[in-house]
Amino acid sequence: MTGAPAEFGLIARHFRPLAGEGALDLLDDAAVMTPPLGRQLVLTADAMVAGVHFLPDDPPDTVGAKLLRVNLSDLAAMGATPLAYLLTVSAPRDTPDGWFQGFAAGLARDQAGFGIFLLGGDTTSTPGPVSLTLTAIGHVAPGRALRRSGARVGDDVWVTGTIGDGALGLAALRGEIRDPAGWLAGRYRLPQPRLGLALHGVASAGMDVSDGLVQDLGHLCRLAGLGARIEASLVPLSSPAAMAGPAWRVACLTGGDDYELLLAVPPANANALQAEAARAGIPITRIGCFTPGDQVVVIGEDGQQLPVSQPGWSHF
Amino acid sequence: MTGAPAEFGLIARHFRPLAGEGALDLLDDAAVMTPPLGRQLVLTADAMVAGVHFLPDDPPDTVGAKLLRVNLSDLAAMGATPLAYLLTVSAPRDTPDGWFQGFAAGLARDQAGFGIFLLGGDTTSTPGPVSLTLTAIGHVAPGRALRRSGARVGDDVWVTGTIGDGALGLAALRGEIRDPAGWLAGRYRLPQPRLGLALHGVASAGMDVSDGLVQDLGHLCRLAGLGARIEASLVPLSSPAAMAGPAWRVACLTGGDDYELLLAVPPANANALQAEAARAGIPITRIGCFTPGDQVVVIGEDGQQLPVSQPGWSHF
Repeated sequence: MTGAPAEFGLIARHFRPLAGEGALDLLDDAAVMTPPLGRQLVLTADAMVAGVHFLPDDPPDTVGAKLLRVNLSDLAAMGATPLAYLLTVSAPRDTPDGWFQGFAAGLARDQAGFGIFLLGGDTTSTPGPVSLTLTAIGHVAPGRALRRSGARVGDDVWVTGTIGDGALGLAALRGEIRDPAGWLAGRYRLPQPRLGLALHGVASAGMDVSDGLVQDLGHLCRLAGLGARIEASLVPLSSPAAMAGPAWRVACLTGGDDYELLLAVPPANANALQAEAARAGIPITRIGCFTPGDQVVVIGEDGQQLPVSQPGWSHF
Repeated sequence: MTGAPAEFGLIARHFRPLAGEGALDLLDDAAVMTPPLGRQLVLTADAMVAGVHFLPDDPPDTVGAKLLRVNLSDLAAMGATPLAYLLTVSAPRDTPDGWFQGFAAGLARDQAGFGIFLLGGDTTSTPGPVSLTLTAIGHVAPGRALRRSGARVGDDVWVTGTIGDGALGLAALRGEIRDPAGWLAGRYRLPQPRLGLALHGVASAGMDVSDGLVQDLGHLCRLAGLGARIEASLVPLSSPAAMAGPAWRVACLTGGDDYELLLAVPPANANALQAEAARAGIPITRIGCFTPGDQVVVIGEDGQQLPVSQPGWSHF
């Protein structure tokens, strides 16, 4: 038998079990997919690098799951339904097989939960840190994708879930903050993409909060030629984040890794929004409104403007 | 104005000009694409790491073009027509802006040539070497994608173009071989994806040769439960490769980076194959045939079996 190169065993052991319809058992040069009839496709690709986007000693199953979830969060932000994904893995040659096993186990658990599958990809070595990319494909009714542009003066600013847990989770994993039950660390490692909200006709604009609430709100503002004013006391915090105390409040607003949805919603649609969020079982909170101007203003508990020197993360 | 993070400038300067319909100017969380009616999509993702898949001092425009072309070669192997692509770039923080400029210029030139455009992606920093991935999307008539499986005993083995130039080009760039006109280096840096051949009903199976002719032929054999016998003297070499002399002959057969098509074709379809190749302007050569058994046998110029200790590249 002509021998297969080493990566074939790796792919067969860990990734073939993830392959779905059209992946051709990962044996071909490419995958073949019949797109859902009468739908638009929604496509996104995100990279994650060890030491930049996750900690090198994060459990590999959470690394696989987070890679999938941050991409699904992008689909959620557009109002899309996930369908399938492609994956590339670049890892050092001495990466233990158990790491791949854990990584694939995290993907397997999550893809079952989200009802999607692997279509294809690539596995290669690198002299650098583990570098991962995932391309997620979803679908949406034609013309119904939610966009980042479109916020209007008077629209309210809403967020799903709680803000700051991811940033505090990273601080906890670095030993900067107490997290006895590991709940904050869990939020950093396993964000919850907010899929399933039907927001077309309800929200004027939306995106997912990945690089810090204040900075990401700035993106919605810039695309609309507007400013915004939010009140720190309205921003929903989890109990563990609230217990971290006032010293960590700004970190919650700017720290990133939330993967919650940030929405611009006309006041007249507030009831419709809350009904839809309740139907989907997703908590949602009004935290401020869009204004004329070009500044994101954060009002502190004392009614004064809170100075925010670093509104979020830059990935470069 | 709320400041945008550094990667926004990078994306605006270099990647936004590459964005096409549905990319939403790279301002949104994801792209929105209307799939071509009545077609299947063909999807592939390949990673390239500096020092593994290209040389760190390769001109950046050729790095961009090669990244695109190796993925288009996968679409070509399935008989698909390219449509669009997503891109992720992980680069050290001190990467000069000129590198991105050159990289994007190579993509711009090639995407115009191949009639495709950028849909989306991600740009991030890495403490390691430049790591690139590209997800290419093409389309094909339903059921007409050419597969790797399906070769039959008696089918002939055909290849497009010339074999070994890429491997010798890498040797030339390493100073191991003379390449005064730089032609071999050019073939290593800028492979030619063999798009545009209509092979459904003509070829039984096919793939692109990326990891070495002998090893890749072994894949077609393994998927069909067959062996193959090829004659080294029939394998088409370019003049520069032929001039490298007999000492480099095995390297041509096993070296990889060819990105030519390798096809299984029933003898009765030889005329149809040659007519289609002539129509597309792509040279094509018969180099052997599929046999019972499970070995890829290479016959040397002396009629004896050529020993091949390392049939191709492993990426892991």
